[in-house]
Order: sequence, then structure tokens, then C-alpha cells
Amino acid sequence: MLIEPGPLLAEINNPGDLRKLDQSQLVQLSAELRQFIIDMVSVYGGHFGASLGVVELTVALHYVFNTPTDQLVWDVGHQAYGHKILTGRRDKFHTNRIYQGLSGFPKRKESEYDAFGVGHSSTSISAALGMAVASKYKQENKHHIAVIGDGAMTGGIAFEAMNHAGVSNSNLLIILNDNCMSIDPNVGALKDYLTDITTSHTYNKVKDEVWNLLGKMSTFGKSAQEIASKVETSIKSFLLKPSNLFESLNLRYFGPIDGHDVTHLTSVLNDLKHIPGPKLLHCVTVKGKGFALAEKDQTKWHAPGKFDKVTGEIRKKVHTIPQPPKYQEVFGQTIVELAKQNDKIIGVTPAMPSGSSLNIMMKEMPERAFDVDIAEQHAVTFSAGLATQGLVPFCNIYSTFMQRGYDQVIHDVCIQNLPVIFCLDRAGFAGADGPTHHGAYDLAYMRCIPNMIVSSPMNEAELRNLMYTAQLPRESGAFCIRYPRGQGVMPEWKTPMEEIQIGKGRMIKDGEDLAILTVGHIGNYVVQVRERLEEDGLNPAHYDMRFVKPLDEALLHEIFSKFKKVITIEDGCIMGGFGSAVLEFMADHQYQCEVKRLGIPDKIIEHGEQVQLHNECDFGPEGIINTVKQMLIPSFLEKE
Amino acid sequence: MLIEPGPLLAEINNPGDLRKLDQSQLVQLSAELRQFIIDMVSVYGGHFGASLGVVELTVALHYVFNTPTDQLVWDVGHQAYGHKILTGRRDKFHTNRIYQGLSGFPKRKESEYDAFGVGHSSTSISAALGMAVASKYKQENKHHIAVIGDGAMTGGIAFEAMNHAGVSNSNLLIILNDNCMSIDPNVGALKDYLTDITTSHTYNKVKDEVWNLLGKMSTFGKSAQEIASKVETSIKSFLLKPSNLFESLNLRYFGPIDGHDVTHLTSVLNDLKHIPGPKLLHCVTVKGKGFALAEKDQTKWHAPGKFDKVTGEIRKKVHTIPQPPKYQEVFGQTIVELAKQNDKIIGVTPAMPSGSSLNIMMKEMPERAFDVDIAEQHAVTFSAGLATQGLVPFCNIYSTFMQRGYDQVIHDVCIQNLPVIFCLDRAGFAGADGPTHHGAYDLAYMRCIPNMIVSSPMNEAELRNLMYTAQLPRESGAFCIRYPRGQGVMPEWKTPMEEIQIGKGRMIKDGEDLAILTVGHIGNYVVQVRERLEEDGLNPAHYDMRFVKPLDEALLHEIFSKFKKVITIEDGCIMGGFGSAVLEFMADHQYQCEVKRLGIPDKIIEHGEQVQLHNECDFGPEGIINTVKQMLIPSFLEKE
Repeated sequence: MLIEPGPLLAEINNPGDLRKLDQSQLVQLSAELRQFIIDMVSVYGGHFGASLGVVELTVALHYVFNTPTDQLVWDVGHQAYGHKILTGRRDKFHTNRIYQGLSGFPKRKESEYDAFGVGHSSTSISAALGMAVASKYKQENKHHIAVIGDGAMTGGIAFEAMNHAGVSNSNLLIILNDNCMSIDPNVGALKDYLTDITTSHTYNKVKDEVWNLLGKMSTFGKSAQEIASKVETSIKSFLLKPSNLFESLNLRYFGPIDGHDVTHLTSVLNDLKHIPGPKLLHCVTVKGKGFALAEKDQTKWHAPGKFDKVTGEIRKKVHTIPQPPKYQEVFGQTIVELAKQNDKIIGVTPAMPSGSSLNIMMKEMPERAFDVDIAEQHAVTFSAGLATQGLVPFCNIYSTFMQRGYDQVIHDVCIQNLPVIFCLDRAGFAGADGPTHHGAYDLAYMRCIPNMIVSSPMNEAELRNLMYTAQLPRESGAFCIRYPRGQGVMPEWKTPMEEIQIGKGRMIKDGEDLAILTVGHIGNYVVQVRERLEEDGLNPAHYDMRFVKPLDEALLHEIFSKFKKVITIEDGCIMGGFGSAVLEFMADHQYQCEVKRLGIPDKIIEHGEQVQLHNECDFGPEGIINTVKQMLIPSFLEKE
Repeated sequence: MLIEPGPLLAEINNPGDLRKLDQSQLVQLSAELRQFIIDMVSVYGGHFGASLGVVELTVALHYVFNTPTDQLVWDVGHQAYGHKILTGRRDKFHTNRIYQGLSGFPKRKESEYDAFGVGHSSTSISAALGMAVASKYKQENKHHIAVIGDGAMTGGIAFEAMNHAGVSNSNLLIILNDNCMSIDPNVGALKDYLTDITTSHTYNKVKDEVWNLLGKMSTFGKSAQEIASKVETSIKSFLLKPSNLFESLNLRYFGPIDGHDVTHLTSVLNDLKHIPGPKLLHCVTVKGKGFALAEKDQTKWHAPGKFDKVTGEIRKKVHTIPQPPKYQEVFGQTIVELAKQNDKIIGVTPAMPSGSSLNIMMKEMPERAFDVDIAEQHAVTFSAGLATQGLVPFCNIYSTFMQRGYDQVIHDVCIQNLPVIFCLDRAGFAGADGPTHHGAYDLAYMRCIPNMIVSSPMNEAELRNLMYTAQLPRESGAFCIRYPRGQGVMPEWKTPMEEIQIGKGRMIKDGEDLAILTVGHIGNYVVQVRERLEEDGLNPAHYDMRFVKPLDEALLHEIFSKFKKVITIEDGCIMGGFGSAVLEFMADHQYQCEVKRLGIPDKIIEHGEQVQLHNECDFGPEGIINTVKQMLIPSFLEKE
């Protein structure tokens, strides 16, 4: 389906073309860009609301600044669709988020206009400051702009960067894109503060009022003038004090201004070009701007999938038979079920209520489920604090974002041996979001920590049983349960829960000649290919180990006593992961065995559908069959 | 040597005893506590300045609050000596930081008064908030106090926690211990801001001035009164706006007050007990207070070692022969040497100028070496930003603190394949600082990341060569060099630098029957024990692999072709580390070999001298000899 850009947009192949327009044409260009994004996303899917919210900002920034010489860093980056379309990628935009197509996020390899790769939040100020400091050192006269949402602003690294920027004397412009939203609404004190600034009694309005009054007073009689003079001195020194969070950090603060008035935006940005040093422009925008439904339900329209742009109906696959639920839904329902039985259970999410499905518990038990904004480090240590008081926190963090709380897992949870439960969603390949969102390293980086149990369920019932087991009173130890993005395999998933012995694996199928050891959902591929292998006379055993740590040593002794060939499969990095744990067991017990480890190889895997990526990495169904054949055909032939 | 406490302190075996004192006695008690700390540290060593700075605060907190029911979290915790002495550990305090003695930091296992284990900075607000939220949920009426320095306040997690605390409506008191110092002076915008508040034109003073003026104005004639009324309205609404960084985050702000006035402190804390909700008390203190030399040179006296408390002379070991330098000194000198040759080199440290020895470069080339305050996440992404501009950042972070920048290493550096150089100091056992500071996991958590080179030098010359190699132009890839706390082995260490082929190991000594593969400084133990092994007729080969990633595959093929027994040694966790990398190589190439991996076992290792801990983990000299014998004696005997 060919989507035509509007007449102005059709002529813009790079920001140079944009800068040839008259300022008066920017309103129309913005409208065309917005429509093009709506047209594109309605047909091809992707992130939606965030890009609509920054259409005018995107146009104004490329109009005023000399990109790519001036450097523009988009925080998180899922709002950069307009940026991509204006920077030479309009005609490729239909490949957005598709295997081997454009990335859904800015990416250095993709375009010189993508000054910094993003995906995780709150990094833009640090990155742009690095660039600004480099320019200063190299005596280059460039502008460096970080566009950061108020949601991303709650991430600690943003604050660390502002603390540095404020004393850097570098040419850095921070644009605070204030729309009160992450994927879900922001909830913390910062959001209240920003709302406060932007509501009727604004900072600026009050400042103006005071100054106006002082102006008027100077026309009164002498005694009044004397008072005025004194008051003025006091008020001046007061006004000159940092009276704003950002000014406290020595960033010159401008705004708030309307982020949808492209004409005013270009004027303000032009002015700011001439003000040296670190500064912040506060823009108020509406996520989903220009698409009424998206403005109204911003969480739903963050990334709605394909939809009818006229009716707003979101196109869902129609299924004739009951479908398995998403793993996240199983988590979301099960934690409520458990919390009803165990009043010590508390839920914690860093800004992912809908993504984790913790929103179910937040609705049913608001006093027991906490969204702490984008703040993974805090989420972990806060959970540790809860655990010291005998509560049972389920801290739900996407695998890839858990990387940001890594020190806290080691230092605040595991060194103290606190029984915090970590549920890592989106473990393995995240799919269309790509490398910044793949949960590739968790098995490796978690299992090396003492006092940590690392588990992964093969299906919905197993997830429920692991969650049930994790919340049972136990002496100590953190408990990590990692599961993938997307659906499980059990349409009837509300099974009765039962305790799993910690560290206990299970045999899925006995067999001969070769054992396949899997951990997690990926094990279902082995079930899938069973018949095809049997057709070739191949009958490997299959074990679902469930726990990467502690390993089921009794089961492994059994396996290595019986089999001389073993395949391990994990949807995580093969360096240091589950397969390596099995090798360690072998070495420690001096088993000799041919082991082939399947998993994510030691390179960055791009975006695509999960199964495409599994195939690329040779642990999709075909890869598994081929590996079994490679290992077994000689002995199989010998047997004949 | 028996150190006697003063008469009041001698009677205080727990805070209950303290609370029996009259408020008027607290000044004397504070003096006695300070003297006891001086006496103790002068004889036994340890952290010094920080604890002296909070003597009055410590006394006041335990006097006013009902510890341990009320919960007190000391951020970082090296300032908690007074706290330990007042909470039942006075008579054991001479074992502080000694193997199997008291920990140098609060530790839950050690005392019920240690509400939360600490060591890394900036965690206290999150932890105390977790406790406060738990108390609220459990309807317990308790106080929760986080004492955090202005240095620790720059760490992003502290900001994340305040953002949550401000909307939590929980009973949390944050005490900002403002002394303008981390180990080195704080440098960022926050420090300037706090200094600004506490200097003569303080926030409070200005506020008072304005209010006084308005009061006076009301005595004037009518027109003046009318003006006053209007001005008052405006100013009131202005004053009621959050006009302070902390108030922006909805924390009630009190202070600044003198943190050495114990009487005033107790009064203020008593008042604050009755003010519900989250609040912050800003206390101004002097690090090293009461010991003139420590007040004067606060960095030197952060942890001076043993000293003469009268003359202030720091007792240093006298050596008759030239000693090897510390690894950090080699780093500090070598980066300057390299930076003189390569103008692209930039140095970055998160608040560890003296600990990393980057202070040498900061002094010689201030425009090229950056202290970014306690902000490991920012340090990494800032370095990534520098690297995008063709600069060559050496980002020096202690191994244990690198955990805090882990996501940034993956997301901002390695996914983008940027050539940032990480120098991880204090890798392996940190010694007396204990488990919070051990750099135990870096080999495991670094090597699983694509586009990452992981290396470790066996001596000073190797460190210099690795640094030289890392800064040479190369296509891509991060380069990690990890080295331990303490001295190397080469008194004459200023060797000419030469390039090392990346991934190239070296044979230290040929041998027979068994190969020992080491990585890093720990390899020197193998050199040390060589003669003792030879006396027993044992002659293992020794290889210094240098690189954990990429492994020297050619060398490994040689080794596994020749040897059927191999020992790997690393001063890192054996789960997933260097030894596991060797096992992966073996499995991939189907070598059959008996491999014994020595390293840090899967448990938390407490504090002690490095060699004590190496021995505890069986990879000190005796452990190595025993392992060699265990593996070789049978075959050795057969040979006889």
C-alpha cells in the first residue's frame, strides 16, 4: 500500500530542504508530517502517541539547527518517527520495525542524523553533554540538543547528567518535552512539580505580577517609593536565587511554552541559539496530539498496533480457537490471586504498569502495588527495604531494564540475602523493539551473584507455580523468574498452583542417544519438532531444567551418566549463560560429553519477529533439528 | 593496646543508656565519642573524617529516636563508627575492618541497629522509604531516617527515591549531611546550589527579610498599606511556590542548621518527630571535625591509616628496598604519559580522583580530565558521547561501582560499538572494605556483552601495555582493563610501552603434566609457588592469558593438545567467569580435559586482607599448591 506524503513533505529529502521553506510554511508541513505518521502507523504499526506529540518540535529543531552538524539526541527515541521521515528515511519508513528494515529507534549505523542510539530512557543529557564537551575541547562551534520527556527525567542518570551539565559551561540545550506521560501516566513528585509550573499560577506569571507591581509602585509618592525600593532589593535578591529545580542545578530555565505552536517554537529556539551555556526549554505537549482517540487514551495509543485511521478501530487478529494468554497477563492475574492469600505480598514496577500487567493489582489493591516512575535502581532498593520489614515484594522489571538496577540487585538485595522476588518480563528477544530491548544477558549476569535463584518457566502453569513457590516463606535469597514477551502455550492457563522444589528440573520426554536441556519457554520448540525428528528416526530426550541456579544436580548426574551427547538451549547469551552453567557442572564432576550450546551468539542481534531472530541464531525449530541431526546422524547411521 | 572511653561513654552500652542522659550531657558525650574515634582510628586505622563529622548527629539521632524500633539508615556507612560504638559494639571496635572482626560499614547481620547494609552510596533514601512504606502498610508507628551526604545525593538513585518519596505520604526523614565532600571535594551543580543556600544570603534569611519588610509596611499610611496588601498577595503566592530543589520534589525542607550543635540538633529533631510526611533536614557539618589536620586536608584524612594522634604523623611502613607502585598510580601516571602523545585521550572518574589517581591528570590537564561526582551511569554515557566525537575516553571506575553503570555499558557503549576504555580498579577482593566493595563479578558480567574486550594485566608493565594498546585507533569495541587494589610487583615499572595483540596470551613458563591458566595479577601467586612445587618434583606450565575476551584460541589449542589437566585461576566469581570461558572453548572444540577452576566461590566473602581472603577461597599460594598436588600426585606417583 503506497502512502503519499503531502506536497511540502514530498519535497523534503533532508533537513536542508526543510530549511529552504519559509517559516510560514511550517504549520502546513507539521500537519503533513503528522498525517503521514498517522497514515504509516495505522497501516504498519509501531509507536504512535509519542511521535505525534513532537511533530512541531521535530520540524522546529531541524529548521533552526544545522543538523547533522548540530547534534540532536532523542531520549528513548520512540518519538523520533518524524525525525526519521525528515532525515532521508521517508521512503523506507514502511520498513520501520520490520526484520532487516528501519529501526524503531534512532541508531547511529542508520543515519548521520541519529547522533546517538537510544531505546532505554534518560540517557540523552549524558550523551549530548559528552558531545558538547568534546566540541568545546575541539573548539568546534556546534549546538547539542537533548530532547527528553518528563517521564525520562525521573531516571537517575538524567539527574546525574544535569548535575554535571550545570558546571560544564558547555553548549547544551535540554528540551523538556512535558506531556505528563511515560507509557503510563507519570506519578512522582517531579510530575506534580512540572504540572504546578504549567498551571495557571505559573512561575512566570507570578514573576511577572511581582515585577509589574514594583513598576506601578514607582509612580506613587515618596514613602511608597522608599518602601518599593526596599521591597525591590529584597525581592530581587530573592528572585535571583535559584527558584526552580533546574535553576538549582545551574541550568538556565526557559518556558513553559506551547510545544505545538511551531512558529513560536522556531522563534524561541532561534533566540536560544544565541544564549551560551547549559539551558533548558520546557515545552508542554500532548502525547497523541492531532489524533483525538490517542489524545484521550494515551496509554492504549502508545503503540496500538495497526488501526483504522478513520474509525480508530484497532485491528486485532481474529482467532477462532481460544488463545494462550501473554505471560505478562499470567503474572498480572496471578500476583493478585497470590496477594489475596498472602497479605505480605507487594507489587513494584518502574513505570510499566500496563507493560507488566501490574496495573491489575494497582487497580484492585492500590495500597499494595507501587509504580515508582522510570527508576529501576530505586525500584530494587525500595523492594529491598520492604523485604527487611518482612514483606514479600514482587519487583517486576523488563529483563533489559534490570540491567539498570544491577548494582542494587548485588549490593542491596543479594549481599544482604533479602528475599526479593524479581519477575523479568521480555526476557530473550524483545522482537520489533530490537537490540536495546532484547533481554539477552540476564541469565549470565544474574547467575553469577550469590544468594540468587534463577528460574524460567516453560509455560503458564510453570510461571504460576514459580510465583507461588517464590512467595512461600523461605530463609533467604532473591528469586528471579524470567519469561518472554508474548504468548504462552496454554489457553486454559488458570491451573491450581503448587510448590516447585527449588532447583528441581523435570523430564519432558525420555529418549536415547542425546539429551536436549532447555530452560524457559524456548523449550516448546523442542516439543514442536519432536515429530519431525521422530520421522527421521531421531528420539532425543528432553529436559526442562526450570532453574539455571541452583542447577538440578541429581538430574544432571542422571543425564550425564546416560548420555554422551547433550544440547543446551536458552534464549539468552551463550557466553556465561545456562549452557555454561551446565559445562561448569560437567567440569566439576569430570563428565566427558559432547555438548552443543544453542543461544544468542556473541554479537548484537537486530530487530525482527522473535521467531525470525531465533532462526537467525539457529535455535528456532530448524536450527534445533539441524543441530540434533549434526550430532546424531553418524551414530544414527552406525546403528542402521 | 587498651583504649579507654570517657566516663559518660563508658556507661553507654546501647542507645537506651544514652537516652537516660540529660540533654545537657550530650555535649560532653559528643566530645568523648569523638575522642574515642580519634583514639581508635589512630591505632587501628579505618575511615576517619566522615565519622568525626557526624558525631553530634549520631548522638542526637539515637537520643531523640527510639532505635532500633525507629530505623536509621546511614548512606555509604563509613561514617557510622560513632553509631557502632553507641550501639553495643564499643568493646569490639578494635576489630573494625579486621578479618572476622566488625565490618567497616553497617551490616544487618552484625546488629539490629544496622537497619540496612550499606557501602555503595546513594541507597539510603530508597531503603528507608521501603521501610517507611512497609510501616505505613502494617500500620506501625515508626520513624525512618536516612542520613545522606551531599556527595551521595548526586547519585541518580537518590533522586529517583526523592521523586517517589515526595508522593508517598510516608514517615520519612532525610538528613542531608552537607560537608561539600565525597572522598574528594564535590564538584557538580548540586554542591554549588547547597553552598549557595548555606552562604550569608540564605534562602531562609531572604525569606525572613521579605516577611519582615511586609510586617513593617503594615504600619505605614493607607496607600502604602494597599500596596503592601497587593505585594503581599503576590509574594505569598510566589513564596508558596516550591522555591527549593527539595521542595520541588514535595519534600518539606528544613534548615540549614549547624550539624555540630548537638543541643540545637536534638531540639530540631524532636520537633520534626511531630511533623508527618516526607521531609528533609539540611545539616551543615565539617568532615574531620575536631581534628584540625583532618579538617584541613579532608581527602587525605578520609581514611588515613594509622597515625600519631598528637603529631598527626601518618604511620607508613618503612621499606629498605624500592617498592612496587600501586596499580592505581601506574594508571594515573600512564594516562598522563599517553595523553601527552595522543590529544584525543580524555579521563573520566565518578568522584574518585584520588582513589583512581586520575587526580594527576586533573592537575596537569584540567581541560581533559573530568570528575563527574558520584554518578557512574552518567560517567559511562558521557564517555560514550565523547567517543562518538572521535575522542578516546578512559573511564576509570572501581570494579564494584561499575555494576552501577552496567546498563549504560551495554546500551550506550557496546550496542553502538563505541571505543570507550574502561579501567576497573579494585577488581578482585577489595580487602578491608569487604563484600560491598569486592570487585567479584566483573569478568562474568563484562564478558557476556558483545563488542567488549576484557583484559587484566599481570603486572605494571602489562597494565601500561594494555593502556597503550587500548588507546590505539581501532575500528570499534569497548576495552576493559581490570586490575586490583594495591601494589604490583615491579619497583622499576616505567617500562617502554608496546602494543599487545588483542586477545594474545603468553606463556610464563613451560612445564609438563598440567597447565595453569591465570588472568591478571593473581598469576603472580603461581610464580611465587613455582619453587615449592619443583621441590616436590612438580613442574606445571603457566600461561598468563591476559584476555578473558577474546580468548587466545591458538594458545588454547596448543594447551589443550598438550595437557590433559588444567587449572584456571581468577580473582573473580567462578560462576561464569574466566574459567567458564575456558570451558566454553573446550566444549566448542570438543577437548576432553580435567579442568579445576579456582576463583571466588558462589557466596558472599567478608572483609579481610586480600591474601587472607584468597586463602579462604583456596586460591592463595597454599590453595594453588594443594590443587596442583591433588591433580598431579596420582600421575606423579605413577611416573615414579
